[in-house]
Amino acid sequence: MQRYFISLDNFKENIIVGDDVFHIVKVMRNKLGDQLEVCAENKAYLVEINNIETDKVEFNILKELHESKVDGPKLTLIQGLPKGDKTEDIIMHSTELGIDNIVLVEMVRSIAKIDPKKLNNKLERYQKIAKEAAEQAHRNQIPTIDIQNGLKNINYDHFDLKILLDEEEAKKELPRYLNQLNLKVSNICFVIGPEGGIDPKERLFLLEQGFIPTALGKNILRTQTASLAFLAMLKYALLP
Amino acid sequence: MQRYFISLDNFKENIIVGDDVFHIVKVMRNKLGDQLEVCAENKAYLVEINNIETDKVEFNILKELHESKVDGPKLTLIQGLPKGDKTEDIIMHSTELGIDNIVLVEMVRSIAKIDPKKLNNKLERYQKIAKEAAEQAHRNQIPTIDIQNGLKNINYDHFDLKILLDEEEAKKELPRYLNQLNLKVSNICFVIGPEGGIDPKERLFLLEQGFIPTALGKNILRTQTASLAFLAMLKYALLP
Repeated sequence: MQRYFISLDNFKENIIVGDDVFHIVKVMRNKLGDQLEVCAENKAYLVEINNIETDKVEFNILKELHESKVDGPKLTLIQGLPKGDKTEDIIMHSTELGIDNIVLVEMVRSIAKIDPKKLNNKLERYQKIAKEAAEQAHRNQIPTIDIQNGLKNINYDHFDLKILLDEEEAKKELPRYLNQLNLKVSNICFVIGPEGGIDPKERLFLLEQGFIPTALGKNILRTQTASLAFLAMLKYALLP
Repeated sequence: MQRYFISLDNFKENIIVGDDVFHIVKVMRNKLGDQLEVCAENKAYLVEINNIETDKVEFNILKELHESKVDGPKLTLIQGLPKGDKTEDIIMHSTELGIDNIVLVEMVRSIAKIDPKKLNNKLERYQKIAKEAAEQAHRNQIPTIDIQNGLKNINYDHFDLKILLDEEEAKKELPRYLNQLNLKVSNICFVIGPEGGIDPKERLFLLEQGFIPTALGKNILRTQTASLAFLAMLKYALLP
Protein backbone atom coordinates (compact mmCIF):
# COMPACT_ATOMS: atom_id res chain seq x y z
CA MET A 1 0.00 0.00 0.00
CA GLN A 2 1.27 3.47 -0.82
CA ARG A 3 2.69 5.39 2.13
CA TYR A 4 2.84 9.19 2.54
CA PHE A 5 4.92 11.22 4.98
CA ILE A 6 3.06 14.25 6.29
CA SER A 7 3.79 16.97 8.83
CA LEU A 8 2.53 16.71 12.40
CA ASP A 9 0.31 19.77 11.86
CA ASN A 10 -1.38 18.19 8.86
CA PHE A 11 -1.68 14.92 10.71
CA LYS A 12 -3.51 16.63 13.59
CA GLU A 13 -5.92 18.13 11.05
CA ASN A 14 -6.25 14.77 9.23
CA ILE A 15 -5.31 16.27 5.88
CA ILE A 16 -2.78 15.61 3.15
CA VAL A 17 -1.74 18.61 1.05
CA GLY A 18 0.83 19.55 -1.63
CA ASP A 19 2.22 17.26 -4.33
CA ASP A 20 0.91 14.17 -2.55
CA VAL A 21 -2.66 15.17 -3.47
CA PHE A 22 -1.80 14.88 -7.16
CA HIS A 23 -0.08 11.56 -6.51
CA ILE A 24 -3.04 10.14 -4.56
CA VAL A 25 -5.77 11.32 -6.92
CA LYS A 26 -4.16 11.32 -10.37
CA VAL A 27 -1.32 8.79 -10.20
CA MET A 28 -2.74 6.20 -7.79
CA ARG A 29 -6.36 7.05 -8.75
CA ASN A 30 -7.55 6.65 -5.17
CA LYS A 31 -11.23 7.26 -4.42
CA LEU A 32 -13.37 7.93 -1.34
CA GLY A 33 -13.19 4.99 1.04
CA ASP A 34 -9.75 3.83 -0.23
CA GLN A 35 -7.06 3.09 2.33
CA LEU A 36 -3.58 4.60 2.57
CA GLU A 37 -0.68 4.54 4.96
CA VAL A 38 0.30 7.84 6.52
CA CYS A 39 3.49 8.53 8.48
CA ALA A 40 3.91 11.41 10.89
CA GLU A 41 6.56 11.85 13.55
CA ASN A 42 8.05 8.40 12.87
CA LYS A 43 4.76 6.60 13.40
CA ALA A 44 2.73 4.88 10.69
CA TYR A 45 -1.07 4.72 10.46
CA LEU A 46 -3.62 3.00 8.30
CA VAL A 47 -6.14 5.63 7.19
CA GLU A 48 -9.24 5.85 5.00
CA ILE A 49 -9.97 8.70 2.58
CA ASN A 50 -13.19 10.50 3.51
CA ASN A 51 -12.96 13.64 1.39
CA ILE A 52 -11.11 14.67 -1.77
CA GLU A 53 -10.76 18.32 -2.86
CA THR A 54 -8.51 20.00 -5.43
CA ASP A 55 -5.89 20.96 -2.88
CA LYS A 56 -6.33 18.41 -0.10
CA VAL A 57 -7.27 14.86 0.80
CA GLU A 58 -8.96 14.30 4.18
CA PHE A 59 -8.82 11.02 6.05
CA ASN A 60 -9.82 9.27 9.24
CA ILE A 61 -7.41 7.04 11.11
CA LEU A 62 -8.27 3.35 11.19
CA LYS A 63 -5.36 2.20 13.34
CA GLU A 64 -1.75 2.77 14.17
CA LEU A 65 0.56 0.33 12.41
CA HIS A 66 2.79 -1.15 15.09
CA GLU A 67 5.69 -2.11 12.93
CA SER A 68 8.41 -4.26 14.37
CA LYS A 69 11.05 -1.60 14.00
CA VAL A 70 14.55 -2.96 14.29
CA ASP A 71 16.36 -0.74 16.76
CA GLY A 72 19.66 -0.88 14.95
CA PRO A 73 22.39 1.73 15.16
CA LYS A 74 21.93 5.16 13.57
CA LEU A 75 23.68 5.25 10.21
CA THR A 76 25.31 8.33 8.73
CA LEU A 77 26.78 8.38 5.24
CA ILE A 78 29.41 11.04 4.60
CA GLN A 79 29.61 11.08 0.81
CA GLY A 80 32.18 12.98 -1.25
CA LEU A 81 30.18 15.04 -3.73
CA PRO A 82 30.03 13.04 -6.99
CA LYS A 83 29.41 14.25 -10.52
CA GLY A 84 26.03 14.68 -12.20
CA ASP A 85 22.95 12.86 -11.03
CA LYS A 86 24.85 10.23 -9.08
CA THR A 87 23.94 12.10 -5.89
CA GLU A 88 20.28 11.36 -6.55
CA ASP A 89 20.98 7.66 -7.09
CA ILE A 90 22.96 7.52 -3.86
CA ILE A 91 20.16 9.21 -1.88
CA MET A 92 17.55 6.90 -3.35
CA HIS A 93 19.49 3.68 -2.83
CA SER A 94 20.80 4.44 0.64
CA THR A 95 17.34 5.54 1.81
CA GLU A 96 15.95 2.19 0.69
CA LEU A 97 18.67 0.42 2.62
CA GLY A 98 18.05 2.26 5.88
CA ILE A 99 20.37 5.27 6.04
CA ASP A 100 19.42 7.86 8.71
CA ASN A 101 21.58 10.84 7.74
CA ILE A 102 23.37 11.75 4.53
CA VAL A 103 26.06 14.43 4.56
CA LEU A 104 27.25 15.46 1.09
CA VAL A 105 30.73 16.94 1.29
CA GLU A 106 32.76 18.81 -1.27
CA MET A 107 36.02 16.87 -0.99
CA VAL A 108 39.43 17.68 -2.48
CA ARG A 109 38.87 15.44 -5.50
CA SER A 110 35.20 16.33 -6.03
CA ILE A 111 34.85 17.57 -9.58
CA ALA A 112 31.34 18.84 -8.82
CA LYS A 113 31.35 22.01 -6.75
CA ILE A 114 28.73 23.39 -4.41
CA ASP A 115 27.12 26.48 -5.88
CA PRO A 116 25.84 28.54 -2.88
CA LYS A 117 23.14 30.13 -5.07
CA LYS A 118 21.69 26.74 -6.00
CA LEU A 119 22.21 25.15 -2.57
CA ASN A 120 18.68 25.59 -1.25
CA ASN A 121 17.07 24.36 -4.45
CA LYS A 122 19.33 21.32 -4.48
CA LEU A 123 18.65 20.47 -0.85
CA GLU A 124 14.92 20.77 -1.43
CA ARG A 125 15.16 18.44 -4.43
CA TYR A 126 17.27 15.92 -2.49
CA GLN A 127 14.80 15.96 0.42
CA LYS A 128 11.99 15.22 -2.01
CA ILE A 129 13.89 12.25 -3.43
CA ALA A 130 14.57 10.94 0.09
CA LYS A 131 10.89 11.33 1.03
CA GLU A 132 9.70 9.42 -2.02
CA ALA A 133 12.30 6.66 -1.54
CA ALA A 134 11.32 6.31 2.14
CA GLU A 135 7.65 6.07 1.17
CA GLN A 136 8.36 3.41 -1.43
CA ALA A 137 10.55 1.36 0.94
CA HIS A 138 7.88 1.60 3.67
CA ARG A 139 10.22 3.28 6.10
CA ASN A 140 8.94 5.20 9.13
CA GLN A 141 11.41 8.03 8.80
CA ILE A 142 12.87 10.25 6.12
CA PRO A 143 16.67 10.57 6.24
CA THR A 144 18.11 14.03 6.83
CA ILE A 145 20.32 15.52 4.13
CA ASP A 146 23.03 18.08 4.72
CA ILE A 147 25.70 19.64 2.50
CA GLN A 148 29.13 20.71 3.76
CA ASN A 149 32.09 22.20 1.92
CA GLY A 150 34.78 20.21 3.72
CA LEU A 151 35.33 17.23 6.01
CA LYS A 152 36.54 19.59 8.75
CA ASN A 153 33.10 21.16 9.07
CA ILE A 154 31.58 17.97 10.40
CA ASN A 155 31.41 17.08 14.08
CA TYR A 156 32.46 13.47 14.57
CA ASP A 157 32.20 13.38 18.38
CA HIS A 158 28.89 11.58 18.67
CA PHE A 159 29.80 8.63 16.43
CA ASP A 160 31.00 5.53 18.24
CA LEU A 161 32.11 3.71 15.09
CA LYS A 162 33.75 5.62 12.23
CA ILE A 163 34.61 3.78 9.04
CA LEU A 164 36.57 5.05 6.07
CA LEU A 165 35.91 3.06 2.93
CA ASP A 166 39.17 3.24 1.09
CA GLU A 167 40.14 1.72 -2.22
CA GLU A 168 43.76 1.74 -1.11
CA GLU A 169 42.84 -0.88 1.47
CA ALA A 170 41.36 -3.13 -1.21
CA LYS A 171 44.76 -4.65 -1.91
CA LYS A 172 45.13 -5.87 1.65
CA GLU A 173 43.27 -8.71 3.26
CA LEU A 174 39.71 -7.62 3.90
CA PRO A 175 39.04 -7.55 7.63
CA ARG A 176 35.63 -8.45 8.89
CA TYR A 177 35.25 -5.21 10.80
CA LEU A 178 31.52 -5.45 10.62
CA ASN A 179 31.59 -8.62 12.68
CA GLN A 180 33.09 -6.69 15.55
CA LEU A 181 29.87 -4.75 15.79
CA ASN A 182 27.96 -5.35 18.92
CA LEU A 183 24.80 -3.95 20.38
CA LYS A 184 26.72 -1.24 22.17
CA VAL A 185 27.44 0.54 18.88
CA SER A 186 24.62 3.00 18.42
CA ASN A 187 25.93 5.56 16.00
CA ILE A 188 27.91 4.59 12.93
CA CYS A 189 29.26 6.89 10.25
CA PHE A 190 31.13 5.94 7.12
CA VAL A 191 32.97 8.06 4.58
CA ILE A 192 33.00 7.37 0.84
CA GLY A 193 35.16 9.51 -1.43
CA PRO A 194 34.10 11.03 -4.77
CA GLU A 195 35.08 9.49 -8.15
CA GLY A 196 38.75 10.33 -7.77
CA GLY A 197 38.98 8.83 -4.28
CA ILE A 198 40.25 10.28 -1.04
CA ASP A 199 43.11 12.77 -0.99
CA PRO A 200 46.08 11.81 1.27
CA LYS A 201 45.51 14.87 3.48
CA GLU A 202 41.87 13.94 3.93
CA ARG A 203 42.82 10.36 4.75
CA LEU A 204 45.27 11.57 7.39
CA PHE A 205 42.67 13.92 8.86
CA LEU A 206 40.09 11.13 9.08
CA LEU A 207 42.56 8.70 10.66
CA GLU A 208 43.27 11.38 13.25
CA GLN A 209 39.55 11.52 13.96
CA GLY A 210 39.57 7.83 14.75
CA PHE A 211 38.28 6.48 11.45
CA ILE A 212 39.05 2.83 10.69
CA PRO A 213 40.05 2.30 7.05
CA THR A 214 38.52 -0.69 5.36
CA ALA A 215 37.52 -1.97 1.93
CA LEU A 216 34.56 -3.87 0.59
CA GLY A 217 36.53 -6.47 -1.33
CA LYS A 218 39.15 -6.77 -3.99
CA ASN A 219 37.14 -5.30 -6.80
CA ILE A 220 36.99 -1.53 -7.13
CA LEU A 221 33.47 -0.19 -6.68
CA ARG A 222 32.25 3.08 -8.13
CA THR A 223 31.37 5.78 -5.62
CA GLN A 224 27.63 5.30 -6.21
CA THR A 225 27.88 1.54 -5.68
CA ALA A 226 30.02 1.66 -2.55
CA SER A 227 27.41 3.18 -0.20
CA LEU A 228 24.80 0.69 -1.28
CA ALA A 229 27.13 -2.30 -0.98
CA PHE A 230 28.31 -1.21 2.46
CA LEU A 231 24.76 -0.68 3.73
CA ALA A 232 23.68 -4.10 2.46
CA MET A 233 26.64 -5.77 4.17
CA LEU A 234 25.93 -3.88 7.38
CA LYS A 235 22.30 -4.87 7.21
CA TYR A 236 23.37 -8.47 6.89
CA ALA A 237 26.01 -8.24 9.63
CA LEU A 238 23.45 -6.73 12.01
CA LEU A 239 20.81 -9.41 11.45
CA PRO A 240 19.68 -10.92 14.74
CA MET B 1 45.42 1.45 -14.05
CA GLN B 2 42.92 1.08 -16.86
CA ARG B 3 42.12 -2.48 -17.88
CA TYR B 4 40.94 -3.70 -21.31
CA PHE B 5 39.39 -7.02 -22.25
CA ILE B 6 40.53 -8.28 -25.63
CA SER B 7 39.99 -11.42 -27.68
CA LEU B 8 42.49 -14.26 -27.61
CA ASP B 9 43.27 -13.69 -31.30
CA ASN B 10 44.16 -10.06 -30.71
CA PHE B 11 46.11 -11.01 -27.62
CA LYS B 12 48.23 -13.46 -29.64
CA GLU B 13 48.97 -10.67 -32.12
CA ASN B 14 49.66 -8.20 -29.28
CA ILE B 15 47.11 -5.68 -30.60
CA ILE B 16 44.10 -3.81 -29.27
CA VAL B 17 41.49 -2.79 -31.85
CA GLY B 18 37.98 -1.31 -32.03
CA ASP B 19 36.46 1.21 -29.59
CA ASP B 20 39.22 0.61 -27.05
CA VAL B 21 41.70 2.39 -29.34
CA PHE B 22 39.70 5.60 -29.06
CA HIS B 23 39.49 5.14 -25.28
CA ILE B 24 43.22 4.55 -24.90
CA VAL B 25 44.37 7.36 -27.19
CA LYS B 26 41.70 10.05 -26.85
CA VAL B 27 40.07 9.50 -23.46
CA MET B 28 43.01 8.27 -21.38
CA ARG B 29 45.56 10.09 -23.59
CA ASN B 30 48.04 7.24 -23.36
CA LYS B 31 51.33 7.57 -25.21
CA LEU B 32 54.12 5.24 -26.36
CA GLY B 33 55.75 3.59 -23.36
CA ASP B 34 52.63 3.92 -21.15
CA GLN B 35 51.47 0.84 -19.28
CA LEU B 36 48.02 -0.77 -19.39
CA GLU B 37 46.36 -3.89 -18.09
CA VAL B 38 45.03 -6.31 -20.67
CA CYS B 39 42.73 -9.27 -19.98
CA ALA B 40 42.37 -12.21 -22.32
CA GLU B 41 40.86 -15.61 -21.56
CA ASN B 42 40.40 -14.75 -17.87
CA LYS B 43 44.04 -13.84 -17.34
CA ALA B 44 45.37 -10.34 -16.71
CA TYR B 45 48.66 -8.92 -17.96
CA LEU B 46 50.64 -5.75 -17.48
CA VAL B 47 51.62 -4.45 -20.92
CA GLU B 48 53.48 -1.50 -22.42
CA ILE B 49 52.36 0.38 -25.51
CA ASN B 50 54.96 0.18 -28.28
CA ASN B 51 53.00 1.44 -31.28
CA ILE B 52 49.89 3.56 -31.82
CA GLU B 53 48.05 3.72 -35.14
CA THR B 54 44.63 5.06 -36.11
CA ASP B 55 42.96 1.67 -35.83
CA LYS B 56 45.16 -0.26 -33.41
CA VAL B 57 47.40 -0.08 -30.39
CA GLU B 58 50.29 -2.55 -30.21
CA PHE B 59 51.89 -3.67 -26.98
CA ASN B 60 54.47 -5.95 -25.46
CA ILE B 61 53.74 -8.00 -22.36
CA LEU B 62 55.68 -7.05 -19.24
CA LYS B 63 54.27 -9.71 -16.96
CA GLU B 64 51.22 -11.74 -16.09
CA LEU B 65 49.31 -10.35 -13.13
CA HIS B 66 48.81 -13.22 -10.74
CA GLU B 67 45.76 -11.95 -8.98
CA SER B 68 44.55 -13.71 -5.90
CA LYS B 69 41.30 -14.76 -7.44
CA VAL B 70 38.75 -15.81 -4.87
CA ASP B 71 37.36 -19.11 -6.04
CA GLY B 72 33.85 -18.40 -4.86
CA PRO B 73 30.72 -19.98 -6.26
CA LYS B 74 29.46 -19.05 -9.72
CA LEU B 75 26.67 -16.49 -9.43
CA THR B 76 23.73 -16.26 -11.82
CA LEU B 77 21.15 -13.48 -11.61
CA ILE B 78 17.78 -14.26 -13.16
CA GLN B 79 16.22 -10.81 -13.44
CA GLY B 80 12.62 -10.10 -14.43
CA LEU B 81 12.81 -7.60 -17.28
CA PRO B 82 12.37 -4.12 -15.76
CA LYS B 83 11.27 -0.88 -17.40
CA GLY B 84 13.50 1.63 -19.17
CA ASP B 85 17.19 1.90 -18.51
CA LYS B 86 17.05 0.01 -15.20
CA THR B 87 18.43 -3.04 -17.01
CA GLU B 88 21.62 -1.14 -17.72
CA ASP B 89 21.98 -0.10 -14.08
CA ILE B 90 21.46 -3.68 -12.97
CA ILE B 91 24.10 -4.99 -15.39
CA MET B 92 26.58 -2.33 -14.31
CA HIS B 93 26.08 -2.78 -10.58
CA SER B 94 25.97 -6.55 -10.52
CA THR B 95 29.08 -6.78 -12.71
CA GLU B 96 30.94 -4.62 -10.20
CA LEU B 97 29.82 -6.91 -7.41
CA GLY B 98 30.97 -10.10 -9.07
CA ILE B 99 28.05 -11.61 -11.01
CA ASP B 100 29.03 -14.30 -13.53
CA ASN B 101 25.85 -14.69 -15.57
CA ILE B 102 22.83 -12.47 -16.04
CA VAL B 103 19.64 -13.87 -17.53
CA LEU B 104 17.01 -11.24 -18.34
CA VAL B 105 13.57 -12.82 -18.43
CA GLU B 106 10.27 -11.47 -19.63
CA MET B 107 8.13 -12.35 -16.62
CA VAL B 108 4.33 -12.20 -16.26
CA ARG B 109 4.43 -8.75 -14.64
CA SER B 110 7.16 -7.29 -16.84
CA ILE B 111 5.80 -4.13 -18.41
CA ALA B 112 8.75 -4.01 -20.79
CA LYS B 113 8.50 -6.59 -23.56
CA ILE B 114 11.21 -8.23 -25.62
CA ASP B 115 11.12 -7.01 -29.20
CA PRO B 116 12.67 -9.82 -31.30
CA LYS B 117 13.77 -7.28 -33.94
CA LYS B 118 15.77 -5.28 -31.40
CA LEU B 119 17.07 -8.27 -29.47
CA ASN B 120 20.50 -8.49 -31.08
CA ASN B 121 21.15 -4.77 -30.76
CA LYS B 122 20.10 -4.81 -27.12
CA LEU B 123 22.28 -7.80 -26.28
CA GLU B 124 25.24 -6.16 -27.97
CA ARG B 125 24.68 -2.97 -25.98
CA TYR B 126 24.32 -4.91 -22.71
CA GLN B 127 27.53 -6.85 -23.41
CA LYS B 128 29.34 -3.56 -23.95
CA ILE B 129 28.10 -2.23 -20.60
CA ALA B 130 29.19 -5.44 -18.86
CA LYS B 131 32.62 -5.25 -20.49
CA GLU B 132 33.17 -1.65 -19.38
CA ALA B 133 31.95 -2.33 -15.85
CA ALA B 134 34.23 -5.37 -15.58
CA GLU B 135 37.18 -3.28 -16.77
CA GLN B 136 36.45 -0.54 -14.27
CA ALA B 137 36.04 -3.00 -11.37
CA HIS B 138 39.29 -4.76 -12.37
CA ARG B 139 37.60 -8.08 -12.87
CA ASN B 140 39.22 -10.88 -14.87
CA GLN B 141 36.07 -11.93 -16.60
CA ILE B 142 33.09 -10.36 -18.35
CA PRO B 143 29.70 -11.72 -17.24
CA THR B 144 27.56 -13.42 -19.87
CA ILE B 145 24.17 -11.91 -20.67
CA ASP B 146 21.22 -13.82 -22.00
CA ILE B 147 17.58 -12.91 -22.67
CA GLN B 148 14.70 -15.39 -22.29
CA ASN B 149 10.99 -14.92 -22.75
CA GLY B 150 9.88 -17.01 -19.79
CA LEU B 151 11.16 -18.70 -16.64
CA LYS B 152 10.35 -22.10 -18.14
CA ASN B 153 12.99 -21.65 -20.85
CA ILE B 154 15.81 -21.76 -18.33
CA ASN B 155 17.58 -24.94 -17.28
CA TYR B 156 17.98 -24.97 -13.50
CA ASP B 157 19.62 -28.40 -13.20
CA HIS B 158 23.20 -27.28 -12.74
CA PHE B 159 22.51 -24.88 -9.84
CA ASP B 160 23.10 -26.30 -6.37
CA LEU B 161 21.54 -23.35 -4.53
CA LYS B 162 18.45 -21.62 -5.94
CA ILE B 163 17.12 -18.54 -4.17
CA LEU B 164 13.91 -16.66 -4.89
CA LEU B 165 13.97 -13.11 -3.55
CA ASP B 166 10.39 -12.46 -2.68
CA GLU B 167 8.80 -9.37 -1.19
CA GLU B 168 6.04 -11.57 0.21
CA GLU B 169 8.61 -13.12 2.51
CA ALA B 170 9.61 -9.72 3.87
CA LYS B 171 6.86 -9.86 6.45
CA LYS B 172 8.25 -13.01 8.00
CA GLU B 173 11.36 -13.29 10.09
CA LEU B 174 14.39 -12.99 7.85
CA PRO B 175 16.32 -16.25 7.88
CA ARG B 176 20.07 -16.16 7.54
CA TYR B 177 20.05 -18.49 4.55
CA LEU B 178 23.33 -17.14 3.37
CA ASN B 179 25.05 -18.42 6.49
CA GLN B 180 24.16 -21.93 5.51
CA LEU B 181 26.43 -21.56 2.52
CA ASN B 182 29.46 -23.73 2.60
CA LEU B 183 32.30 -24.42 0.24
CA LYS B 184 30.39 -27.22 -1.38
CA VAL B 185 28.01 -24.76 -3.00
CA SER B 186 29.55 -23.95 -6.36
CA ASN B 187 26.72 -22.63 -8.44
CA ILE B 188 24.15 -20.21 -7.05
CA CYS B 189 21.27 -18.62 -8.92
CA PHE B 190 18.79 -16.09 -7.61
CA VAL B 191 15.59 -14.75 -9.12
CA ILE B 192 14.41 -11.14 -8.77
CA GLY B 193 11.01 -10.15 -10.15
CA PRO B 194 10.26 -7.05 -12.23
CA GLU B 195 8.66 -3.89 -10.72
CA GLY B 196 5.31 -5.56 -10.14
CA GLY B 197 6.87 -8.56 -8.37
CA ILE B 198 6.46 -12.25 -8.99
CA ASP B 199 3.20 -13.71 -10.23
CA PRO B 200 1.71 -16.54 -8.08
CA LYS B 201 2.05 -19.02 -10.95
CA GLU B 202 5.70 -18.12 -11.38
CA ARG B 203 6.28 -18.46 -7.63
CA LEU B 204 4.72 -21.92 -7.66
CA PHE B 205 6.81 -22.95 -10.67
CA LEU B 206 10.03 -21.78 -9.00
CA LEU B 207 9.20 -23.52 -5.73
CA GLU B 208 8.65 -26.71 -7.73
CA GLN B 209 12.14 -26.23 -9.18
CA GLY B 210 13.59 -26.20 -5.66
CA PHE B 211 13.93 -22.46 -5.15
CA ILE B 212 14.13 -21.24 -1.54
CA PRO B 213 12.08 -18.08 -1.00
CA THR B 214 13.75 -15.41 1.11
CA ALA B 215 13.78 -11.66 1.62
CA LEU B 216 16.49 -9.09 2.19
CA GLY B 217 14.87 -7.39 5.17
CA LYS B 218 11.68 -5.69 6.18
CA ASN B 219 11.97 -2.75 3.83
CA ILE B 220 10.81 -3.19 0.28
CA LEU B 221 13.61 -2.78 -2.22
CA ARG B 222 13.13 -1.72 -5.81
CA THR B 223 13.97 -4.32 -8.44
CA GLN B 224 17.19 -2.52 -9.41
CA THR B 225 18.35 -2.31 -5.78
CA ALA B 226 17.59 -5.91 -4.85
CA SER B 227 20.27 -7.57 -7.01
CA LEU B 228 22.95 -5.24 -5.75
CA ALA B 229 21.94 -5.64 -2.10
CA PHE B 230 21.82 -9.41 -2.40
CA LEU B 231 25.23 -9.60 -4.08
CA ALA B 232 26.79 -7.38 -1.41
CA MET B 233 25.34 -9.54 1.36
CA LEU B 234 26.53 -12.69 -0.38
CA LYS B 235 29.99 -11.19 -0.80
CA TYR B 236 30.05 -10.49 2.90
CA ALA B 237 28.67 -13.91 3.86
CA LEU B 238 31.30 -15.61 1.73
CA LEU B 239 34.26 -13.72 3.19
CA PRO B 240 36.93 -16.13 4.41
